[in-house]
Amino acid sequence: MSTLVTLEVRTGERETLVDIGPQVVAAVRASRVQSGVVHLWALHTTCGLTVNENADPDVARDMVAKLGRLVPKEESFYRHAEGNSDSHVKTSLFGPGLTLLVEEGRPVLGTWQGIFLAEWDGPRTRKVAVKVVEG
Amino acid sequence: MSTLVTLEVRTGERETLVDIGPQVVAAVRASRVQSGVVHLWALHTTCGLTVNENADPDVARDMVAKLGRLVPKEESFYRHAEGNSDSHVKTSLFGPGLTLLVEEGRPVLGTWQGIFLAEWDGPRTRKVAVKVVEG
Amino acid sequence: MSTLVTLEVRTGERETLVDIGPQVVAAVRASRVQSGVVHLWALHTTCGLTVNENADPDVARDMVAKLGRLVPKEESFYRHAEGNSDSHVKTSLFGPGLTLLVEEGRPVLGTWQGIFLAEWDGPRTRKVAVKVVEG
Repeated sequence: MSTLVTLEVRTGERETLVDIGPQVVAAVRASRVQSGVVHLWALHTTCGLTVNENADPDVARDMVAKLGRLVPKEESFYRHAEGNSDSHVKTSLFGPGLTLLVEEGRPVLGTWQGIFLAEWDGPRTRKVAVKVVEG
Repeated sequence: MSTLVTLEVRTGERETLVDIGPQVVAAVRASRVQSGVVHLWALHTTCGLTVNENADPDVARDMVAKLGRLVPKEESFYRHAEGNSDSHVKTSLFGPGLTLLVEEGRPVLGTWQGIFLAEWDGPRTRKVAVKVVEG
Repeated sequence: MSTLVTLEVRTGERETLVDIGPQVVAAVRASRVQSGVVHLWALHTTCGLTVNENADPDVARDMVAKLGRLVPKEESFYRHAEGNSDSHVKTSLFGPGLTLLVEEGRPVLGTWQGIFLAEWDGPRTRKVAVKVVEG
């Protein structure tokens, strides 16, 4: 048994981590899968997905600040005319997909783990495919 | 139902992104799986896999250029005698594997998403294991 | 058929790669799954998982050294009061999870590939969820 749905995520800044945990939990619950996995996939090339702390908002803020310094928007050697090569780099660093375990009808996460869409070229409306597979 | 095949990928430079999308699409089609997932795994420690834009080739070129500056080949503190510690670092930054959704007999990808082998220590012939699982 | 177990991993330094391959192999063997996948998930926000060379220990050592320079512990702009924002960044760069193929009752790995827990804020005792799924 499996289900596939697409989440919509609105992001408010060029670079930001948006907590999509409640949407993922709702999609897993709606699937009625009790035990299995949930595959998440961002359908874009300038945003990714990650799991990290969602307790203190300064963690996500510091992560975005650090990525912005490691991979700044402007580099003299960039050739891509859209001017968002940094967004593409950051997307591959965090990665476009996640596979979470599901038990008792919920994603298996550690105490401090939250699920984030990592926006690197917003603000935009993003789509995340969510497939829940029993087993 | 599942199938496992191994792709061979020839890379032409030390550091380059090679579009393996057509090979992955062909492997999924050959499996005859209509709905499920496809797991990709690079069987090496100096190349990885990623998904990013395959429309403008300058995107992949800029990504490789940026990674080369973030993680240059030479660092005074490297001890690994083969001289490719940078390739190992880049491999773990992008990661060795991907899990893509499959619907209607094809990988589920956004409009601009292509599937790349990220070569960090070529040119070489690389192997990528591909397992398609129905469900 | 699937099984879920949790590994415990003791790490000895603040930043280190710990080979968890033997524990993963044992968990796959105990599941009796011959063909399928094994999903690994670190239940924390300051350690991740990766696959890289486990033959020459200088590779892991160089990787940790490089990550420490790319993302140093102290940055003037960090606000998170715990002082481990760097650990959170490194965790998302390597990622919290891996999905490995399983054939003939063992994880499918290349000749030089080993499975590591990437500790970025140790020493600690870490938990890694391991789900083996047949198929």
